[in-house]
Amino acid sequence: MTRVVVVGGGFAGLLAVRGLRKADVEVTLVDRQNFHLFQPLAYQVATGALSAAEIATPLRQILRRQRNAQVLLAEVTGFDPAAHTVSLDYIASGGRNATLEYDRLVVAGGSAYSYFGHDDWAEHAPELKSLTGALDLRSRILSAFEAAEVEDDPDVRASWLTFVVVGGGPTGVEMAGQIAELARDTLHRDYRVADTRSAKVLLIEATDRLLGTFPETLARRAEASLASLGATTLLNTTVVGVDAESVEVRSADGETSRIPARNAVWAAGVTASPLARLLASASGGETDRAGRLLVEPDLTLPGHPDVFALGDMVAVRDLPLPGVAPVAMQEGRHVARSIARGRNAPFRYRDKGNLATIGRSRAIADIKGLHFSGLPAWLLWLGLHLFYLIGFQNRLLVLTRWTFSYVTRGRGARLIHD
Amino acid sequence: MTRVVVVGGGFAGLLAVRGLRKADVEVTLVDRQNFHLFQPLAYQVATGALSAAEIATPLRQILRRQRNAQVLLAEVTGFDPAAHTVSLDYIASGGRNATLEYDRLVVAGGSAYSYFGHDDWAEHAPELKSLTGALDLRSRILSAFEAAEVEDDPDVRASWLTFVVVGGGPTGVEMAGQIAELARDTLHRDYRVADTRSAKVLLIEATDRLLGTFPETLARRAEASLASLGATTLLNTTVVGVDAESVEVRSADGETSRIPARNAVWAAGVTASPLARLLASASGGETDRAGRLLVEPDLTLPGHPDVFALGDMVAVRDLPLPGVAPVAMQEGRHVARSIARGRNAPFRYRDKGNLATIGRSRAIADIKGLHFSGLPAWLLWLGLHLFYLIGFQNRLLVLTRWTFSYVTRGRGARLIHD
Repeated sequence: MTRVVVVGGGFAGLLAVRGLRKADVEVTLVDRQNFHLFQPLAYQVATGALSAAEIATPLRQILRRQRNAQVLLAEVTGFDPAAHTVSLDYIASGGRNATLEYDRLVVAGGSAYSYFGHDDWAEHAPELKSLTGALDLRSRILSAFEAAEVEDDPDVRASWLTFVVVGGGPTGVEMAGQIAELARDTLHRDYRVADTRSAKVLLIEATDRLLGTFPETLARRAEASLASLGATTLLNTTVVGVDAESVEVRSADGETSRIPARNAVWAAGVTASPLARLLASASGGETDRAGRLLVEPDLTLPGHPDVFALGDMVAVRDLPLPGVAPVAMQEGRHVARSIARGRNAPFRYRDKGNLATIGRSRAIADIKGLHFSGLPAWLLWLGLHLFYLIGFQNRLLVLTRWTFSYVTRGRGARLIHD
Repeated sequence: MTRVVVVGGGFAGLLAVRGLRKADVEVTLVDRQNFHLFQPLAYQVATGALSAAEIATPLRQILRRQRNAQVLLAEVTGFDPAAHTVSLDYIASGGRNATLEYDRLVVAGGSAYSYFGHDDWAEHAPELKSLTGALDLRSRILSAFEAAEVEDDPDVRASWLTFVVVGGGPTGVEMAGQIAELARDTLHRDYRVADTRSAKVLLIEATDRLLGTFPETLARRAEASLASLGATTLLNTTVVGVDAESVEVRSADGETSRIPARNAVWAAGVTASPLARLLASASGGETDRAGRLLVEPDLTLPGHPDVFALGDMVAVRDLPLPGVAPVAMQEGRHVARSIARGRNAPFRYRDKGNLATIGRSRAIADIKGLHFSGLPAWLLWLGLHLFYLIGFQNRLLVLTRWTFSYVTRGRGARLIHD
């Protein structure tokens, strides 16, 4: 029986495993975490709108009925394409080593945000790709309001109530919008001293526009939506320093200034999973500037037709693709088909459209050239995210929370804890 | 205006604050956490049945409309009953000190489980009084099954699948029942190698019966219910040692034996919040062996009619009371009435009954001398817990999860993360 090892239970890896459910293969899914994270909603955990378990589903639960699949909670430490093996450490039993043999290998390690060589900024400007990152951000954002409530110095209080979001892609836009709504609509009656409506939300973007993958008219509408929520967009602005009390930025004309802000969120740049480099060095492959592994149009490694790499950690030769969930999902399904048929074929991305949400009734949509925004785009966004969320229970729970949030402007999951 | 400072946002403190909502007072609620935890359901978080935010509600959200109340996220560091002040450190702004003046002080710091002087056992046998404790336990319990799945040595695998619960009170009984159901019903199809149905759950109790506050016939039924779930009760057995790989116990005849078990949960003994001792030493009061502060029948400190102490951290003179939520809630309401009327009165506990749940359709009830068990007791337990849970949204979310768990025997919140 063909042994398939899939590394990574994100969209790409999970769809590859699911796509093999009827194939005559044995699949082993290896992940460092015991759950699949619905990453497009992580920012809602970070702002207290959803609880962690509502967007994270145990991998074993998803695959419980897929009898040809097993799950291993392990960290991959090495690849040997010549010997057809993967080395790993089992996480739950104190890091015991093991080696898995494969006939087909599928690696989908994902990506993280990139601090452009300033990893020390991460301490003050965390990112929210992971669930623990989102929970950490939630504690920090909520704690900032608590600190403002008991602060006597008006300047210090203002700096607790200033939130800098770095990166004008979909995640940055969503975070800026959500923090603005949190301060303006959710929290303003919760505090007796601090005026949460005076909170400043600044969205910093290095280029001359937000949401580079969207048509410019829609990006302008997103900027206007953010402005209507009280969030300020600073274009042509780069971050040159981050510490506990401020963010230093440089504008297009080269002037630097220091923004007194005790909160920063990082959603800029992209760096591929370290697995990309590990796999490149084991197979004689190449990585690009963002650390992404270069793969053939059929998503295999050059010279290794039995090794597939996909998702955010790869760049496909001659096929520029955005690092979004639909690409990863389609790639996962494509690889499953290739393995099931025993014949590799070039991957083609079917772009079904592009959606971003800014806040309550505020979203933009670009569906096959049809541009729209506001309530219709927002409802489409809601429906699609509920549809793609895994598990009927989680859909119902998220729908319940969203309905309450819509009616009350509240956010029920505003917990500060380790 | 009368200034009331309430320390602790558990059942006792929160009900005191809520009870003062129509009184002509200014209330300040001080807590180290920004949420009220519905502690009776913490064990369901620890076993993956519920998500954290479903049983924890932000204090500010609960009190948002109570305009005479404010909330401070702070740790109390001292009391000065002569000067009518409380010292505290603000948690969110790096521990800055402050002093609050009060006309009436209400202290309800709660309790924790007691390791009987063996605090080093806590590392291997965590307790679940707090939300972080419950989340930590969840990660450990789920990780044990992951470790069993990849373990080759059958003895080591068996020790990963052995769960020792220490303490035969309601929490211990509930945890033992839930772990047994998790292993037997929820997880058995999730693993390919480990047979989770072979998991052993041992409930250790030092006395000759479970559930000391219940009639003996009901306690026997609870023990039989546990047995039907595959959990074994060891009565007259005391724990004399806990390490990473085993629990050492001594039976009534003095013989000690070592149980190979890599999982232990502590739910025995009780020790009052350190605030009890702090308040005792500041006011010349006394504490008992469990560290509980001795208070007058009107719940005031001897010689300090303006200082109330209540809930699990106190022992009321001549009035033995169990450390359960209904006592704390009634005491909170009573203190609010005393303050609102400006006249202290002795507290009387109205015992409405006693409920404990063991598992699906398994519970026991003792309602004013009426004893019943099984499905009727379980439905009563469900209804009462939903009723007392704070917030309509959380009731709906918990009801959704329970309905799904009932139908599918699944548990949706089975996440392992920091």
